[in-house]
Amino acid sequence: IRTGIPEVIYGAAKSVEQIITIARAQIATGGPVIATRVEREKAKQVQLVLPECHYHERASMLTCLERRATAPSFRGEALILCAGTSDIPVAEEARVTLEALGSPVKTIYDIGIAGLHRLLLHREVISQASVIIVVAGMEGALASVVGGLCTAPIIGVPTSVGYGASFGGVSALLTMLNSCAPGLAVVNIDNGFGAACMAFSINRQNPTG
Amino acid sequence: IRTGIPEVIYGAAKSVEQIITIARAQIATGGPVIATRVEREKAKQVQLVLPECHYHERASMLTCLERRATAPSFRGEALILCAGTSDIPVAEEARVTLEALGSPVKTIYDIGIAGLHRLLLHREVISQASVIIVVAGMEGALASVVGGLCTAPIIGVPTSVGYGASFGGVSALLTMLNSCAPGLAVVNIDNGFGAACMAFSINRQNPTG
Amino acid sequence: IRTGIPEVIYGAAKSVEQIITIARAQIATGGPVIATRVEREKAKQVQLVLPECHYHERASMLTCLERRATAPSFRGEALILCAGTSDIPVAEEARVTLEALGSPVKTIYDIGIAGLHRLLLHREVISQASVIIVVAGMEGALASVVGGLCTAPIIGVPTSVGYGASFGGVSALLTMLNSCAPGLAVVNIDNGFGAACMAFSINRQNPTG
Amino acid sequence: IRTGIPEVIYGAAKSVEQIITIARAQIATGGPVIATRVEREKAKQVQLVLPECHYHERASMLTCLERRATAPSFRGEALILCAGTSDIPVAEEARVTLEALGSPVKTIYDIGIAGLHRLLLHREVISQASVIIVVAGMEGALASVVGGLCTAPIIGVPTSVGYGASFGGVSALLTMLNSCAPGLAVVNIDNGFGAACMAFSINRQNPTG
Amino acid sequence: IRTGIPEVIYGAAKSVEQIITIARAQIATGGPVIATRVEREKAKQVQLVLPECHYHERASMLTCLERRATAPSFRGEALILCAGTSDIPVAEEARVTLEALGSPVKTIYDIGIAGLHRLLLHREVISQASVIIVVAGMEGALASVVGGLCTAPIIGVPTSVGYGASFGGVSALLTMLNSCAPGLAVVNIDNGFGAACMAFSINRQNPTG
Amino acid sequence: IRTGIPEVIYGAAKSVEQIITIARAQIATGGPVIATRVEREKAKQVQLVLPECHYHERASMLTCLERRATAPSFRGEALILCAGTSDIPVAEEARVTLEALGSPVKTIYDIGIAGLHRLLLHREVISQASVIIVVAGMEGALASVVGGLCTAPIIGVPTSVGYGASFGGVSALLTMLNSCAPGLAVVNIDNGFGAACMAFSINRQNPTG
Amino acid sequence: IRTGIPEVIYGAAKSVEQIITIARAQIATGGPVIATRVEREKAKQVQLVLPECHYHERASMLTCLERRATAPSFRGEALILCAGTSDIPVAEEARVTLEALGSPVKTIYDIGIAGLHRLLLHREVISQASVIIVVAGMEGALASVVGGLCTAPIIGVPTSVGYGASFGGVSALLTMLNSCAPGLAVVNIDNGFGAACMAFSINRQNPTG
Amino acid sequence: IRTGIPEVIYGAAKSVEQIITIARAQIATGGPVIATRVEREKAKQVQLVLPECHYHERASMLTCLERRATAPSFRGEALILCAGTSDIPVAEEARVTLEALGSPVKTIYDIGIAGLHRLLLHREVISQASVIIVVAGMEGALASVVGGLCTAPIIGVPTSVGYGASFGGVSALLTMLNSCAPGLAVVNIDNGFGAACMAFSINRQNPTG
Ligand SMILES: Nc1ncnc2c1ncn2[C@@H]1O[C@H](COP(=O)(O)O)[C@@H](O)[C@H]1O
Ligand SMILES: Nc1ncnc2c1ncn2[C@@H]1O[C@H](COP(=O)(O)O)[C@@H](O)[C@H]1O
Ligand SMILES: Nc1ncnc2c1ncn2[C@@H]1O[C@H](COP(=O)(O)O)[C@@H](O)[C@H]1O
Ligand SMILES: Nc1ncnc2c1ncn2[C@@H]1O[C@H](COP(=O)(O)O)[C@@H](O)[C@H]1O
Ligand SMILES: [Mg+2]
Ligand SMILES: [Mg+2]
Ligand SMILES: [Mg+2]
Ligand SMILES: [Mg+2]
Ligand SMILES: [Mg+2]
Ligand SMILES: [Mg+2]
Ligand SMILES: [Mg+2]
Ligand SMILES: [Mg+2]
Repeated sequence: IRTGIPEVIYGAAKSVEQIITIARAQIATGGPVIATRVEREKAKQVQLVLPECHYHERASMLTCLERRATAPSFRGEALILCAGTSDIPVAEEARVTLEALGSPVKTIYDIGIAGLHRLLLHREVISQASVIIVVAGMEGALASVVGGLCTAPIIGVPTSVGYGASFGGVSALLTMLNSCAPGLAVVNIDNGFGAACMAFSINRQNPTG
Repeated sequence: IRTGIPEVIYGAAKSVEQIITIARAQIATGGPVIATRVEREKAKQVQLVLPECHYHERASMLTCLERRATAPSFRGEALILCAGTSDIPVAEEARVTLEALGSPVKTIYDIGIAGLHRLLLHREVISQASVIIVVAGMEGALASVVGGLCTAPIIGVPTSVGYGASFGGVSALLTMLNSCAPGLAVVNIDNGFGAACMAFSINRQNPTG
Repeated sequence: IRTGIPEVIYGAAKSVEQIITIARAQIATGGPVIATRVEREKAKQVQLVLPECHYHERASMLTCLERRATAPSFRGEALILCAGTSDIPVAEEARVTLEALGSPVKTIYDIGIAGLHRLLLHREVISQASVIIVVAGMEGALASVVGGLCTAPIIGVPTSVGYGASFGGVSALLTMLNSCAPGLAVVNIDNGFGAACMAFSINRQNPTG
Repeated sequence: IRTGIPEVIYGAAKSVEQIITIARAQIATGGPVIATRVEREKAKQVQLVLPECHYHERASMLTCLERRATAPSFRGEALILCAGTSDIPVAEEARVTLEALGSPVKTIYDIGIAGLHRLLLHREVISQASVIIVVAGMEGALASVVGGLCTAPIIGVPTSVGYGASFGGVSALLTMLNSCAPGLAVVNIDNGFGAACMAFSINRQNPTG
Repeated sequence: IRTGIPEVIYGAAKSVEQIITIARAQIATGGPVIATRVEREKAKQVQLVLPECHYHERASMLTCLERRATAPSFRGEALILCAGTSDIPVAEEARVTLEALGSPVKTIYDIGIAGLHRLLLHREVISQASVIIVVAGMEGALASVVGGLCTAPIIGVPTSVGYGASFGGVSALLTMLNSCAPGLAVVNIDNGFGAACMAFSINRQNPTG
Repeated sequence: IRTGIPEVIYGAAKSVEQIITIARAQIATGGPVIATRVEREKAKQVQLVLPECHYHERASMLTCLERRATAPSFRGEALILCAGTSDIPVAEEARVTLEALGSPVKTIYDIGIAGLHRLLLHREVISQASVIIVVAGMEGALASVVGGLCTAPIIGVPTSVGYGASFGGVSALLTMLNSCAPGLAVVNIDNGFGAACMAFSINRQNPTG
Repeated sequence: IRTGIPEVIYGAAKSVEQIITIARAQIATGGPVIATRVEREKAKQVQLVLPECHYHERASMLTCLERRATAPSFRGEALILCAGTSDIPVAEEARVTLEALGSPVKTIYDIGIAGLHRLLLHREVISQASVIIVVAGMEGALASVVGGLCTAPIIGVPTSVGYGASFGGVSALLTMLNSCAPGLAVVNIDNGFGAACMAFSINRQNPTG
Repeated sequence: IRTGIPEVIYGAAKSVEQIITIARAQIATGGPVIATRVEREKAKQVQLVLPECHYHERASMLTCLERRATAPSFRGEALILCAGTSDIPVAEEARVTLEALGSPVKTIYDIGIAGLHRLLLHREVISQASVIIVVAGMEGALASVVGGLCTAPIIGVPTSVGYGASFGGVSALLTMLNSCAPGLAVVNIDNGFGAACMAFSINRQNPTG
């Protein structure tokens, strides 16, 4: 695998049959199965045929992990922060992906920016992470605030949570792109998976392996 | 004056002659002269003819204030916060306008969001203001953070400071419109004048006067 | 409560269970329950468990108000104006929120801008309010017209009512942001709740309390 | 002339030489010369060669009108209203074009919407026009307000006057497109010429001539 | 009726009960009932109670017309052109509205721009109309082409017909706003009603009546 | 040359020195020099050093063509149409590029859509071209109209000519993308060069050579 | 048929009855029936009445092809490439259209850009096509990469596949419009049909026939 | 320094005096001076006063580096790739920043995506970098292609290079945000500085230091 990351199934536009076919092929070659954006109903049907698959409710993901002979080793623990309860599905997509890729991961869900004090309570955990994923919708300012508190690289994930002038995540995306906090880069709106890939890539002990 | 706010000259598209003509008429009727968006060169020429006018360099404003018989009384002190040095001209437009309207006003310029600690140093002053204007460009997150620290009404002024995906102030505008902090409303990009009018209107002792 | 406004439940993305859990905790601590964006069906189910909650049909809100020992006192009466019948749900979100926060509030619903004379009939009520919320979709010009008639601070709430080039409320939002009327600031599209928080914050007798 | 309107020179991107060449040809065939968007300097140079051309300073137009054998007759007087002084150049482009096309035309420049009372002073003139052009930038609400006062067809011309979220005239354009006032249609931003063509076409006694 | 056009019910967001209440009041005062955007199902229920109302299937309109003592007289026949079959509902909204307002009206539906020859077949009818409404989606070029063939004023109605980069009617709207054809003005996307009001206003014999 | 098209110098952001260096290298290898977006002044300085280069004023291009041993043969003549005089620079960029690539090319500049009859005069030439480039700004409808008259493939080039809601060429771009005329594809705004490359590629006798 | 392409039914907004009526008329005149955007259910009902029609599941198209006396001859084989499985419906719309128009066509579905090596495997087939259609959503970079590998003209079809900042195909559209690869032009988002018409027009032996 | 990155002067909106004042203060505290967006002329004037500052022409940066007692150690070499010559200033801003922060860095400038073969020549260097910055304007596809060739984390920097539908960098930004390549995150348009901060943060041996 040239990019260091196994082929992952994007389930959103696939039928149950398509998912099963691809998953079977991956199991056959001893590889892991990682599928994102799989709705509950679809997942249940896949599991009838492939009971070894595990469904992650909040992340809408299906996984069936291999026994890796030689897992990569990691620099430390990745940390996922999220601003509101509605952002949790995106944060969970990141968490389950990181776990499926073998990386240690910790989460703190529920520290909106309006309550700065709540964030400051977690200051120590934040300062110890080797890489941080910040998931936030609406105005998305949490990434900037965290960026001012730590030295680790930060990956911002704007979410489509919000209404009106949030424009489906555009507001949060622009906030993160324009952040004055150094050491922050951004992925697509709602792309918890992509943030996890970037975090995995950063957290690997051997980046060129 | 039906709206409680005297006629203010928008100097951006006016010639020196036009400004002088209007200012003279206002002086004649004993009213104050307040002109915004007047470039240095234009202002100098106006002052040759109307030396009683004062030019405010950083605000790009010209004022010539009357001696009001009965000034309105105010609830407290308005506070203007601004995030970066490039936002100062907009903040100054707000400050000079508020002073011209008679309101007490205080300013703190230089508390970017990246350095949360700098903001927290001013916590007490912030909690004592009767109304707060927050001026910020780029990601504009300062308004949200301040909103979490106080009970006074906050007026956000997004600025056109930034480049790339700041889109001339759109990013900061969206951030402020989507803010989760309660008690925050927003005016047009770079509209320090409008923010001051709103703050004046809030800060007057007698709102319906 | 650091911001002077109690924690309010944003019901849009929450399940009945989640709403009940949070509401119970708030009742336990003697606080008020205020929940916005709760659909009729969800509300009915919450009420089965928490019959002390009141459902506000047109506002899509659930409230269960505490007996405050020391209510804040207010400067006067807040006034809510709205342009068309389709804007009423947003106006009601503002009204119910203001009432839940203890503020006196009056409403005039049905004064579209096309009929200027209808607006002028209410001129006296308008001039007596201590703070005004103007709710309008489509072209959103009502806020500007009201702004020319009064001295009180005005909070504009653009709504997503309209079609075609109204772009989900963007047209009304831009109209309000560009208004020439002084003393007007704006909140997010359809954000009746946010407008009420700003109005409450303005209308409190003691702004820094 | 198939469209009832003579060929008009759009001067914005043309050289002095190009304008002279076209104008000469039009004079030779006895037709009128009407050129829009001609800057002062260019115009002066054209006049050196074609002294029969008249330059309209505020409209940035050059005209040289023929003696029509049979002028069309008109239904009444066209009226041009404009909101602010910065909108006058666009209003003048409309006025000079209408005059060049032979239509009677009247103007009222200086009735911003913030001062509703100023508009109401002109109520009678407004109610007597056969067609009305409303020129307005920033929030552009004047067109809606006028629309509620009269039965004549109204042509809205949004202007690029404004800053920040006026987006070069987009805000005023959207306001006018979404207006609830019946009997209102819109032309391109700053297109005084186009509004005049539409008004001429409406005001002709014989629409199919 | 100050604007010359009776109050029209915008049915999109109204319940059957609301429509019946307003319609009854209008019938009581001898006025016409004109309601737009009424879905088939809703209309059937209204008709059960108010059998004198007529439902116009393709226009989604309900009307119940009064016997006017003194109908206005008209300059000629309004003409409605439309580019494709999917644009017909919008064209019909215009037609039914014009008829309800008493104006003579003719329609030609089915002359896409790709087949220029089809349009040219109708050249004579086009040149005889006193006002023309052109309804077109996708690229919306029909309005420009018609504009080159006639002297009557033209009202362009962009429609939301199309996909991809038609952006819900924005493409057609921009085409019409930028048209080089003189004597063309534009209303909101899908606003057949507004176009009819403008056409009625133009076509009345006495514009200031 | 893998793509069949020699390396072309994009002069817009290059210094005179950079252009000379690249041009010299290309001359040395016997290849043609083709440079686009070279302003007059820069071109003059390049010619001082490389007098064998020819400057094309209206196209803002520099060329110095090789003597090809084996020129490709072509299917027929490419035709370039353009709507207004302001579009000519873009049309010329396409023409000079096609000539530099060896393709026969013909041009008709000056057939705006408002005058359909002018276009119809050229019907025969249009029907004989092997490929057609249509260059148009403002509403860009010319491409659709031409598309209805011929069987040859058409390449639309929207231009940034226009103002207001033309949005720097976006209006013309959308018109062309949404065109109902079959056999039409589009290149970037103002990209005469790209259109010529596509036309060359189509017009070559041997497409896979 | 003036444009060389038979009338094609755009089924998206048509009823079963409308489709049958038009198809019958086309069969009666010996012409082919080609209908796009026909959902499965609608198609089944059409086939009950017109069993000679064939339904293409993945393309959502109905065809009933005539026996052409004199089919056009073609320059070579058109090639359709597509980036991901979700893009296949658009690619199939292009393929079925090309076949219905008589052109030879080959497809390669499944060469995303992330795996460059997969693309390079097909290098020879790519270099032999007479015209290439590249169908891609999300970032749409495949068209650029293919453009660097061949001399044949390329038609890019951006698709609406993606989420977040793909903005319904806008991201892929912009990528293709800005491509540095020469010999590439673009059609509307998801417009497989339009791409096929352009490819047919290019691939015909006699372009002016 | 809480974020691990010293205060960097954003020179774009600062006067020579302001830059000198801040730089002096930084030199006084033994810290490095790093200033971005400093035009040549301004830089020369700063150097007259502070001759110890070095000016980086292509990066428009001024630096004056301290002698660090304890420099951080790094995981490997950062690599900067850029697509076209016009992107070099942005790439240089990244390079000079990384060097100023002490990180080893290598650059390859001149591998446009149109010539895939040029990219493949550098395959080995690419596979050995510990972190990669890809700078690209216009369609910005280079980041995706590189992403398919390596395992290191990639930071995409879209640039404002391009014209027409590149919309000042928006096209490249969207391409990168929508990239299918895993392990890619993005910073603001033209933000070479931000990319370098992220790369530095990733490349540090001790991320939490
Ligand atoms: N200010 C203007 N705005 C829009 N269109 C104009 C304007 N002035 C002239 N035109 C149109 O531009 C056409 C002439 O364009 P051109 O041949 O480039 O001079 C005329 O037929 C007019 O319809
Ligand atoms: N289809 C329509 N599009 C735009 N405006 C409409 C439409 N139908 C009715 N209206 C306007 O909507 C107003 C009534 O709105 P409402 O009070 O909400 O029923 C009327 O005065 C009409 O001017
Ligand atoms: N006017 C133009 N518009 C778009 N691309 C161009 C233009 N002129 C040259 N190019 C492309 O730009 C590339 C050269 O870019 P550069 O290396 O910066 O000179 C060539 O391969 C051409 O494909
Ligand atoms: N080129 C740049 N782009 C974005 N941010 C920058 C740039 N250069 C410096 N900065 C940031 O701007 C801040 C300094 O802003 P200022 O106080 O206005 O000089 C620093 O903390 C940097 O993080
Ligand atoms: Mg940091
Ligand atoms: Mg607060
Ligand atoms: Mg007011
Ligand atoms: Mg009216
Ligand atoms: Mg006409
Ligand atoms: Mg054709
Ligand atoms: Mg190629
Ligand atoms: Mg990779």
